[in-house]
Amino acid sequence: MTQPAHLHPDRLFPASEPAQSIARELYPAVKDLPIVSPHGHTDPSWFAGNGRFSTPTALFLTPDHYVLRMLRSRGISYDALGIPRKDGKPVEQDGRKAWRLFAENYFLFAGTPSKTWIDHSLHAVFGIAEELSAATADRIYDAIEAGLATPDLLPRAILDRFNVEVIATTEFALDPLVHHQKMEADNYIGRVRTTYRPDDVTDPSRPAIVENLKKFGELTGEDIAKWDGLINAHRKRREYFRRFGAVATDHGVPSANTADLPLVEKQALLDKVLAGRHDAADAELFRAQMLTEMALLSVEDGMVMQIHAGSRRNTDPLLFAERGPDLGADIPGPTDYVGGLRALLSRCGNEPNLRLIMFVLDETTYARELAPMAGYWPSLMIGPPWWFHDSPQGIRRYLDQVVESAGFYNLAGFNDDTRALLSIPARHDVWRREVCGFLGRWVGENRLARSTAEEIARHLSYSAAKDAYRIK
Amino acid sequence: MTQPAHLHPDRLFPASEPAQSIARELYPAVKDLPIVSPHGHTDPSWFAGNGRFSTPTALFLTPDHYVLRMLRSRGISYDALGIPRKDGKPVEQDGRKAWRLFAENYFLFAGTPSKTWIDHSLHAVFGIAEELSAATADRIYDAIEAGLATPDLLPRAILDRFNVEVIATTEFALDPLVHHQKMEADNYIGRVRTTYRPDDVTDPSRPAIVENLKKFGELTGEDIAKWDGLINAHRKRREYFRRFGAVATDHGVPSANTADLPLVEKQALLDKVLAGRHDAADAELFRAQMLTEMALLSVEDGMVMQIHAGSRRNTDPLLFAERGPDLGADIPGPTDYVGGLRALLSRCGNEPNLRLIMFVLDETTYARELAPMAGYWPSLMIGPPWWFHDSPQGIRRYLDQVVESAGFYNLAGFNDDTRALLSIPARHDVWRREVCGFLGRWVGENRLARSTAEEIARHLSYSAAKDAYRIK
Amino acid sequence: MTQPAHLHPDRLFPASEPAQSIARELYPAVKDLPIVSPHGHTDPSWFAGNGRFSTPTALFLTPDHYVLRMLRSRGISYDALGIPRKDGKPVEQDGRKAWRLFAENYFLFAGTPSKTWIDHSLHAVFGIAEELSAATADRIYDAIEAGLATPDLLPRAILDRFNVEVIATTEFALDPLVHHQKMEADNYIGRVRTTYRPDDVTDPSRPAIVENLKKFGELTGEDIAKWDGLINAHRKRREYFRRFGAVATDHGVPSANTADLPLVEKQALLDKVLAGRHDAADAELFRAQMLTEMALLSVEDGMVMQIHAGSRRNTDPLLFAERGPDLGADIPGPTDYVGGLRALLSRCGNEPNLRLIMFVLDETTYARELAPMAGYWPSLMIGPPWWFHDSPQGIRRYLDQVVESAGFYNLAGFNDDTRALLSIPARHDVWRREVCGFLGRWVGENRLARSTAEEIARHLSYSAAKDAYRIK
Repeated sequence: MTQPAHLHPDRLFPASEPAQSIARELYPAVKDLPIVSPHGHTDPSWFAGNGRFSTPTALFLTPDHYVLRMLRSRGISYDALGIPRKDGKPVEQDGRKAWRLFAENYFLFAGTPSKTWIDHSLHAVFGIAEELSAATADRIYDAIEAGLATPDLLPRAILDRFNVEVIATTEFALDPLVHHQKMEADNYIGRVRTTYRPDDVTDPSRPAIVENLKKFGELTGEDIAKWDGLINAHRKRREYFRRFGAVATDHGVPSANTADLPLVEKQALLDKVLAGRHDAADAELFRAQMLTEMALLSVEDGMVMQIHAGSRRNTDPLLFAERGPDLGADIPGPTDYVGGLRALLSRCGNEPNLRLIMFVLDETTYARELAPMAGYWPSLMIGPPWWFHDSPQGIRRYLDQVVESAGFYNLAGFNDDTRALLSIPARHDVWRREVCGFLGRWVGENRLARSTAEEIARHLSYSAAKDAYRIK
Repeated sequence: MTQPAHLHPDRLFPASEPAQSIARELYPAVKDLPIVSPHGHTDPSWFAGNGRFSTPTALFLTPDHYVLRMLRSRGISYDALGIPRKDGKPVEQDGRKAWRLFAENYFLFAGTPSKTWIDHSLHAVFGIAEELSAATADRIYDAIEAGLATPDLLPRAILDRFNVEVIATTEFALDPLVHHQKMEADNYIGRVRTTYRPDDVTDPSRPAIVENLKKFGELTGEDIAKWDGLINAHRKRREYFRRFGAVATDHGVPSANTADLPLVEKQALLDKVLAGRHDAADAELFRAQMLTEMALLSVEDGMVMQIHAGSRRNTDPLLFAERGPDLGADIPGPTDYVGGLRALLSRCGNEPNLRLIMFVLDETTYARELAPMAGYWPSLMIGPPWWFHDSPQGIRRYLDQVVESAGFYNLAGFNDDTRALLSIPARHDVWRREVCGFLGRWVGENRLARSTAEEIARHLSYSAAKDAYRIK
Repeated sequence: MTQPAHLHPDRLFPASEPAQSIARELYPAVKDLPIVSPHGHTDPSWFAGNGRFSTPTALFLTPDHYVLRMLRSRGISYDALGIPRKDGKPVEQDGRKAWRLFAENYFLFAGTPSKTWIDHSLHAVFGIAEELSAATADRIYDAIEAGLATPDLLPRAILDRFNVEVIATTEFALDPLVHHQKMEADNYIGRVRTTYRPDDVTDPSRPAIVENLKKFGELTGEDIAKWDGLINAHRKRREYFRRFGAVATDHGVPSANTADLPLVEKQALLDKVLAGRHDAADAELFRAQMLTEMALLSVEDGMVMQIHAGSRRNTDPLLFAERGPDLGADIPGPTDYVGGLRALLSRCGNEPNLRLIMFVLDETTYARELAPMAGYWPSLMIGPPWWFHDSPQGIRRYLDQVVESAGFYNLAGFNDDTRALLSIPARHDVWRREVCGFLGRWVGENRLARSTAEEIARHLSYSAAKDAYRIK
């Protein structure tokens, strides 16, 4: 048997010379650099408790909405894949059966980043070189199961093995951070850090918003019914998060809209929200104002602000009613950062202490808006290609469209944004390979000196993320 | 004389190695696969009557709005090209003179798909290797004319020669299908099929809508003044079309908007339309509701639904007044499938029997919306790059942007969507070459196994179209 | 020391064969063609007075907002770069200190077109081969300063040296054209030409609009309070500009919206503007109507009309208040040419004498709208990639997306649109190299004959601009 394509040492590099040789020469210097993962969604209980992972299905299939959605798109039901239903009706309980269904249909993933990540993980973590298929389903299942029983695959051992220097989790404002408290006791904070994501108390479209805001007041001892009290509650909570290593805040918003209202209007808006009398436009305005408030707090405390805009959530109401959110029915939409950020940037876009990283799912804005904005405002940087665009072609389109106007030094490097722990090295490796390939093409066209390419490869693979997120 | 570029056996393949060799090796296995053409606009009278084609001008120039529009764009008048006027004023009647004008200006088509298709047809059908120009105009005209007089170039002989396994025409709901009746008598249905395109009775912006709806009621024996009667008329008419091989419906709509109204509102809307009291918003809503109704009928009868959205028709009012529609002044616009299909998909997007193929002229939605949607919804597939994007670069941008999120198996393969019979093999050949080139690049980058590429090349060249359109 | 990448003779050409060799063979025939620069913003006083340029900083740094904005984006203040403030507070006065700051941070420009242009200028004009950096800052400063003292670097000598056949400047309608009068006396008009840019009297959002319109009336002896008088004033002024070589008009507008109102509504709109009672919608409508009027005047007098749409100006209010416009805070936005030009094209889009060149900052419209429009309307051509998109990747995306639908002959060739005199040859050279590279790829893929590629390379490098702008 010849070596599978996904294990080829030159995979993803340009196929033709001289770009391939240049990429191949740039890569070794960045391949093993420590992983800096300043934005992600791994479960902090893993690193706090350091308990073993359960089954192969629970590790690779059930939590990965990229995988689930593709199977669903070809007619495989979430019942058969064992995804729980809200109505309690039975779904597949046998992890091995669900795994087999996945394996039989693994050919559907040809050409997708999911396959790249899974193939990489199977090989790098479990030493499995053969491809998943109906024929290999059980053998691979058994091999993963055996691996999970060893101490080498406990969560902290995995961080060591992956050479993870820093990894950030993401917690809501009301989260008590119990796992991070445990890690603080273990002297493990710094390597693992939390991130302040206050959507639970800034987004009035959430059904629990009033209750959440009340809890927020209790938690911080502030009168959140007054605007200043509300802001002070955030100020305190951000400080609390920083105790557990937080260097950044994160804001998942439908649009990038921001507002800068006079106090009396802010208070009126808050009154409405607390009384549950707000409509969709009020909710949008509240979120918009809160983004500006968060920016002003970042000016104060230096936390890096991240805005993830442009996802249309839960576009399948049947799925949402049946099983809840985050199961693959979120679809991107157009995003206007120029108009959206106007209020925030007019207020504090030139403040030296502000750092705002923009993530977008609308590639049409890369060259037209994001790169020109980041190439002007001292406070703005462009986040890596995100979500569906965290892929080889996605990275190519991104670099193609942002570098010429924003330069390399207004990019925030890479982050994996994942809840799939084992995919982290695979994702960083794809980014590093693509960066080397991109630079290889440009050096091959005599657009960059080799020595410049070496610096940039290292920067984009490692130091850009540390610099962007102000990680000391 | 050296071989013209357009006859080079490696044309369109990647120029550099190893991608070129891989493409060259993949291509022979798909080159001669039968042509499946499940969506197009050839004239059924050709296949029913099997009469000879008239002149070279009537074959290549007059009916091809791609060719006409380019000539017009450089100042050549439609009068001089022989395009009839509504006011009856004289236009060029001498086909040979119009042909010469075309030939003199053929250099304008350098780099366009029109040139690729015409060059291919001239060579493959008429054995003409030299390029069209002022110098060769008459010689080529004569050669085509001579060819058209032979039995080898009668329509059914052309289908044999092109190895067309299935070709679908498109007829409006009111079409009596006389040509298909003739083909039924000849036992030729199956190879040629009709497609149900009910725009004539679903689009209230048509001046004849009231009259058309009345005829629709008479034709089906249903009371189309009642909503249920209207739907039942469609039900019956779809069944009638299926008798003539129809596997699909087709819907040409300005936007992808759908609606799902309560019966009382649907009836009120129908009342308005029948009374001629509808405005533009009513027309949009009626079309939107009819798309959902068509989807529900597809759930019943299994016909594949095609939506072609996003063309702004007749943007030159002078041309329209002077000579009518379909002469090159339709220009694409942005299209929102996510918002547009919300009502339809919420109603029946998870029905196993629904299959909906989305065509789009707005490439910005490929990666942002279409691929994520097709990679989630079991009912959705992505149609091939359409119209201006049915071109080498158009196909490259399409594959670049859809494959990573949708995979290869949510694509509907290729269809030619043409009324130019002789261009059909040329178009399928461009697609097959581009697919092999795309796969050659990816295999060259070690992103796909060679054996996987072989399967996908065959799938996208042939079986995807049969599967997508449920052609047995 | 090895040769710096930016001096490599094959720079920007495709890295792989055979495309590289083909590009390398096409390039020599276009490399030294005269420069035709029909759209730009150089200062006519340079060519009228032919005085020496002042300092390196005033030549390369202070007037180049591409350079300024990138430095600002990385935290370098405009004060430190010596950009004057409106409040008269001190800014850096020492040009050499500002230069050093620029040099230290020159690494930020890796991969940007700014670096390409500057490197090219330093070498081609001053013979400087080493790269700008902290280490070389003073040496390079001195070398430039020494060069500027020689007669070889007087403005007219520079035009000779660069082989500039024609260069157009751009003046507002009220400009007295004193420098062009001087050049007329010197018999230098024809080589240098003005361009009629009436934004000062067509855009009611300008604070001085009423005053400007009054001056416009005085200047032309027309009663601009009457619509016909206003149009006649333009008619006369266009004629005056033509005396100084003008072949074109230029219109910088936020959107491409046009209108075609009845006279009574036009007069009412003008009354409002003259009374200072117009709001933003009135201003937009006035601009929209004026575009149609300008097109009608172009039908009369044959001047080529240029529309530059889609920039959101002055998005940083702080910068604008502090230092004024054109300092890097203009950001592109989406542009709708199809809807926007509807009124204008319906009125006169088929007039043989109309020539309208569309420039756009919204690449999403290249394949979807601009190419289909230019491939239909006899009056429309597509301008070169503009502003942030005047770059190697920008040119590649442009050619990739426009050629197949518009052909090569609906493109207006290249123009540099710059106020940076020394960057002109660099910009034309990048365009010519990219054209050769593009053609090299297509010839390598057997999509164009070599002889066709030779013709097109010459056309796009030189004759397209002369043809498009009707320069005899």
